[in-house]
Amino acid sequence: MRAVDIIRAKRDGQRLSSEAIASFVQGVTTGAWPDYQTSALLMAIVLRGMTTEETADLTLAMVASGDRVDLSPLPGIKVGKHSTGGVGDKVSIVLAPLAAACGVTVPKMSGRGLGHTGGTLDKLESIPGFRTVLSLDEFLAALAENGCAIIGQTANIAPADKKLYALRDVTATVESIPLISASVMSKKLAEGSDALVLDVKCGRGAFMKTLDDARALAHSLVVIGTNAGVRTEAVISRMDAPLGRAVGNALEIRECVAILKGEGPTALTGLIVRLAARMLRLAGGAAADDAAEAQVRAALASGAALERFGRMIARQGGDAALVDRDDVLPWAARRSTVVAARSGIVQHVDAELIGRASMLLGAGRDRLDAPIDYAAGIVLAVEPGTRVEAGTPLMELHDNHAEQYENARALAGTAVTLGDEAPPALPLILDWIHL
Amino acid sequence: MRAVDIIRAKRDGQRLSSEAIASFVQGVTTGAWPDYQTSALLMAIVLRGMTTEETADLTLAMVASGDRVDLSPLPGIKVGKHSTGGVGDKVSIVLAPLAAACGVTVPKMSGRGLGHTGGTLDKLESIPGFRTVLSLDEFLAALAENGCAIIGQTANIAPADKKLYALRDVTATVESIPLISASVMSKKLAEGSDALVLDVKCGRGAFMKTLDDARALAHSLVVIGTNAGVRTEAVISRMDAPLGRAVGNALEIRECVAILKGEGPTALTGLIVRLAARMLRLAGGAAADDAAEAQVRAALASGAALERFGRMIARQGGDAALVDRDDVLPWAARRSTVVAARSGIVQHVDAELIGRASMLLGAGRDRLDAPIDYAAGIVLAVEPGTRVEAGTPLMELHDNHAEQYENARALAGTAVTLGDEAPPALPLILDWIHL
Repeated sequence: MRAVDIIRAKRDGQRLSSEAIASFVQGVTTGAWPDYQTSALLMAIVLRGMTTEETADLTLAMVASGDRVDLSPLPGIKVGKHSTGGVGDKVSIVLAPLAAACGVTVPKMSGRGLGHTGGTLDKLESIPGFRTVLSLDEFLAALAENGCAIIGQTANIAPADKKLYALRDVTATVESIPLISASVMSKKLAEGSDALVLDVKCGRGAFMKTLDDARALAHSLVVIGTNAGVRTEAVISRMDAPLGRAVGNALEIRECVAILKGEGPTALTGLIVRLAARMLRLAGGAAADDAAEAQVRAALASGAALERFGRMIARQGGDAALVDRDDVLPWAARRSTVVAARSGIVQHVDAELIGRASMLLGAGRDRLDAPIDYAAGIVLAVEPGTRVEAGTPLMELHDNHAEQYENARALAGTAVTLGDEAPPALPLILDWIHL
Repeated sequence: MRAVDIIRAKRDGQRLSSEAIASFVQGVTTGAWPDYQTSALLMAIVLRGMTTEETADLTLAMVASGDRVDLSPLPGIKVGKHSTGGVGDKVSIVLAPLAAACGVTVPKMSGRGLGHTGGTLDKLESIPGFRTVLSLDEFLAALAENGCAIIGQTANIAPADKKLYALRDVTATVESIPLISASVMSKKLAEGSDALVLDVKCGRGAFMKTLDDARALAHSLVVIGTNAGVRTEAVISRMDAPLGRAVGNALEIRECVAILKGEGPTALTGLIVRLAARMLRLAGGAAADDAAEAQVRAALASGAALERFGRMIARQGGDAALVDRDDVLPWAARRSTVVAARSGIVQHVDAELIGRASMLLGAGRDRLDAPIDYAAGIVLAVEPGTRVEAGTPLMELHDNHAEQYENARALAGTAVTLGDEAPPALPLILDWIHL
């Protein structure tokens, strides 16, 4: 099957056969398809779309391009989790030990941050000694012992996705629900879980700006997973303001500890509890949502989840003393506040601007090989609805004399909008999608 | 201006600014744009289109990517000609000396054949000694002496087009009126003529299959040329059956001699006379179409055009004795006929199938570096409307024991469709487009 014929078929809006899609993915993996043909097909897919069947075919071909992790040595139903990524999204780091404390096995493979969104691996690596690179055997042993472990991808997971993703980034072919779906689900399916809970972010700080788009992506992900034999559900959650108060690696780990101690932001804690409860139900550990949620809240209240968090950290080489001591994680040399210029009520806090400001302070990277300052970031003092006077601190910036400090400060200052009326109270969870 | 932002803008259906287009063409020319970004943008252009202004910007940027030939040392209005390419299209080879015999200066730069369509340069190179590579000085001298010369592109004409064309061919991004227009017109404008006559082919043997598509392309070409200060007209001519009776390089040169002797096919001769008359009018050599056509027919009847043809050949090193002697051009070792399987009336002769059969006999190439057998080809004995009996020859195949002879013969046999009713008589000229 000639590459040019496959490109032409998609250009003309035709459905690609399973064979054509397999030939494409194989060509990408082996290098038989040069990048210029791949990018032409990617653009044709962005503009012509793909059917549910084509997207499923693409996903499975990408899974087959590499290894599929065998989690069968572990007993029970293994439940994976994935977020499409947001600012201040530390959900997985709390969720894995919380669900594990309720008896669910959570084999979590995560990624690094790029641009204004942070990465789970970077956050965990702000913990002194923490190792995100484990062998598959170490990963299985950690899961057998604690029920949870969070690592980078082992070995050769969906190599076609890696190549396609690098190319999509520089050819303006990222924005496509079929391509995003295949990218996410090929990795998740290759990671070998029996069930999946997905968190599709929606709003001005997320990739999906509208609820319609987020629903379309969530539905696509759920269909692919379910049809591949993996029970898959998706929550659609709001990403207008940052998730929680802390943005930046060590700062977010501190907020994780607070959540596990029952002292975290209410809405974020609620989202985590709902996700943990769904994971528990998917794992067969509760008969109804109410019971599952009660069990999860009990694991938080009893300290079982915090204890499991400490064990997970220790098992991966990190200093678990951080759950009790404030000085285990690094602090930045400078803390400065951004204050309200007038009195009023916070209308919104722009997640993307906060994310970008935090990146400029050193907490994130704009190139994959750039270094990260684990101590840098922003801690918000307000959220939508908070009433402030002129001069009230809106947030605290943490940095080690970052070169871009002034730019970060200016950007962060524009992220909080003040007004006179109370803004509408908006729920964090917008929808649940399952088949 | 970042490549990815330009690609994204076109992907989203936005109009590209002149600066964005110049940046793209410059990037292609210098190699600063990697092929994978170029092909992504090309696919976005194919699917999103370009406005007239964008297409003009693209054309002029492509002209500016290389040299523009300076024909100003020659007196008078220089009139170029271009055909979008068809099977048996030997029009330029007759037209250039015919118009020159009427006083028009015709500086013709031509291309080579690929696939089922032949190339003017290949046809001329079937003449022993004929040189298609002249220096610009030699070209100008030949034009000053004879008023016509047909050569390959000199030097550095629209190098961006060469790169884009090579990439379009392998990324299924050929089929786009803006991209075709910019490719054709960038070369034609860079060739430095003052006026242009274009022959846009339309039909089953042409790239443009429908009259609407052909009109759209012709209009686009004429607008670009006219707005760039070059008076441009386009004829739309039918390309269902091959043009004339001969297909194949030396065989077509023989048909050119026949046309110049007044013994060529009536419809083809009529098209050439109309084109020559328009060139004469554009050059200011006649006040009205009727007068121009009469002048052209006189140049044919008097033998002045044939004499000019002989001078052009001799000036470029070829053996001009071919106008009198049948054995100057090569003959193939074998001639065989394809005969009618039944009696009936020829409904149509498929130009593309005849073109492909001729290529298989050795007359054409499917790769740009493949050799050509100048003697090989097909001479049709019939045309739509010809009444035949079973066993009547439909065509003669000429080959030097080509490896693909049997395939060529089978293909050629399917090119002629017989029926019982006389087919409608269809005009060769379908429309004229000018502003």
